[in-house]
Amino acid sequence: MHREDFDNKYRQFVRLVDDALNALVAESDAPQKTVYDAMRYSLLAGGKRFRPVLMLAVCEMLGGKPDDVVPYACAIEMIHTYSLIHDDLPAMDNDDYRRGRLTNHKVYGEAIAILAGDGLLNLAFETMLMHAEHYSSDLKRHVQAMKIIANASGISGMIGGQVVDIEAEGRDISSELLEYLHRHKTGALIKAPVMAAAVLCGADETCVKRLESYAEKIGLAFQIKDDILDVEGTFESLGKSVRKDMQKEKSTFVKLYGLDGAKNKLFSITEEAVNQLAVFGDKADFLSELAYFIAGRQN
Amino acid sequence: MHREDFDNKYRQFVRLVDDALNALVAESDAPQKTVYDAMRYSLLAGGKRFRPVLMLAVCEMLGGKPDDVVPYACAIEMIHTYSLIHDDLPAMDNDDYRRGRLTNHKVYGEAIAILAGDGLLNLAFETMLMHAEHYSSDLKRHVQAMKIIANASGISGMIGGQVVDIEAEGRDISSELLEYLHRHKTGALIKAPVMAAAVLCGADETCVKRLESYAEKIGLAFQIKDDILDVEGTFESLGKSVRKDMQKEKSTFVKLYGLDGAKNKLFSITEEAVNQLAVFGDKADFLSELAYFIAGRQN
Repeated sequence: MHREDFDNKYRQFVRLVDDALNALVAESDAPQKTVYDAMRYSLLAGGKRFRPVLMLAVCEMLGGKPDDVVPYACAIEMIHTYSLIHDDLPAMDNDDYRRGRLTNHKVYGEAIAILAGDGLLNLAFETMLMHAEHYSSDLKRHVQAMKIIANASGISGMIGGQVVDIEAEGRDISSELLEYLHRHKTGALIKAPVMAAAVLCGADETCVKRLESYAEKIGLAFQIKDDILDVEGTFESLGKSVRKDMQKEKSTFVKLYGLDGAKNKLFSITEEAVNQLAVFGDKADFLSELAYFIAGRQN
Repeated sequence: MHREDFDNKYRQFVRLVDDALNALVAESDAPQKTVYDAMRYSLLAGGKRFRPVLMLAVCEMLGGKPDDVVPYACAIEMIHTYSLIHDDLPAMDNDDYRRGRLTNHKVYGEAIAILAGDGLLNLAFETMLMHAEHYSSDLKRHVQAMKIIANASGISGMIGGQVVDIEAEGRDISSELLEYLHRHKTGALIKAPVMAAAVLCGADETCVKRLESYAEKIGLAFQIKDDILDVEGTFESLGKSVRKDMQKEKSTFVKLYGLDGAKNKLFSITEEAVNQLAVFGDKADFLSELAYFIAGRQN
């Protein structure tokens, strides 16, 4: 797939998601309008929308209807955004900038930032349930998709990884624990849109297995690239503080394997991810390119 | 209903809920075990279990099976508990004691307390979805029940009320806004178990309307009693700091109507709540007694 075609398609997916998110978290004139404002501030700050794009792309490849999965894709982006708001809090990573703007608590204060995060997590489920309610024959698939997303974002998924990350600060950890950490903290919520789309589109067992393996590998690649960017990136390109991992004595893939070692691992795992897609033929062109996009991204 | 029979039945319901909660948040030896410990610390601290008891009682009155609703009752208690953990944080109400023990962040630190709260909210949905998945013919009812609970706990419900509460500190607010605040902050999550049980048990429209009105009235009574206890209660009876509302210049029903005025309002609204139950005959004995229990409770 030509890079230009990939970029156009990516932009199309992003527009679908952005329009839906904008409608799902409308402005409000209720007495609690501040929390709507705070949620919109972080949710509509123009992230890469990587997770929802991934979900829409899998759905398209499997012949599903985008309308069936857009609300789930939005829910996953809400969960991702809430996790960033809470991660940035002074009690956690204490970051002042995110996506090139002040973090949520720097603008709205800590109390509202905590509640905006809670609100987004809760709204993710409200959004999915409101959508699922419209189905009857396929309702079971929708409940399964919601369960996949819920498990991925909880204590046995993303939150669990964040806990390990916090407790690992200032300690040397094994490569096994580092992979465990990222498989949960970042990997789970990259795998969830893929697996949820597969369930919603009724993919067969072989396809599900290949997609699962692809998702696990790009999830790991995503984190390795993050660690590399923390060393090589700039505030201007990333929109957030750099060299934070070193300052906070965080274990990273760069610390563990060295910069060149991390880059080699990123390269090989990206190739492995792409190889999983062979079974889908050229229908998988976008997803293949997406794997290379992760490895090459500058933010 | 004799007070002794009521107490026995209440204890039976509590035991059902406590056993289920204990199993749902089992101890863990995973690398993220701390967050399981923190969640158990607050969830199994022996609260009144008012919301889950309410749900089980409505279910029983409507002829439903307790097993069908216990996971939802537990989910609501998880949501209630997460809201207390986050409310107690230094950035919010900054409370050191809750249910007679140190608050979550005093024991586990702020970062883990935030994540334990997030984890409980997320686990509430995991629990409900895992349960719902077992049904097929009735799946729609289960999705509706989850949606009722999700909406009640979100920005148009409990979280919304908490935002108004924070922003009202130190300001004089109207009685309308005070009722709005509590209808959202406390009322929504008292109404949710009643309405969700009604949907799950297939109650007809008349019954739903009466139950809705009953739930709204006991929700308001619950908050008025809370405000009275903040003035009249002791640390020993309540297990938490008292006179906090005055210190934080919070608007309360006592501040608005005076202590006697608040007590009169509590009395009349309790009678009104009980009157809603006439249509159910003596099947509603426990729910009637529950309304008086709210008005008379010492913690």
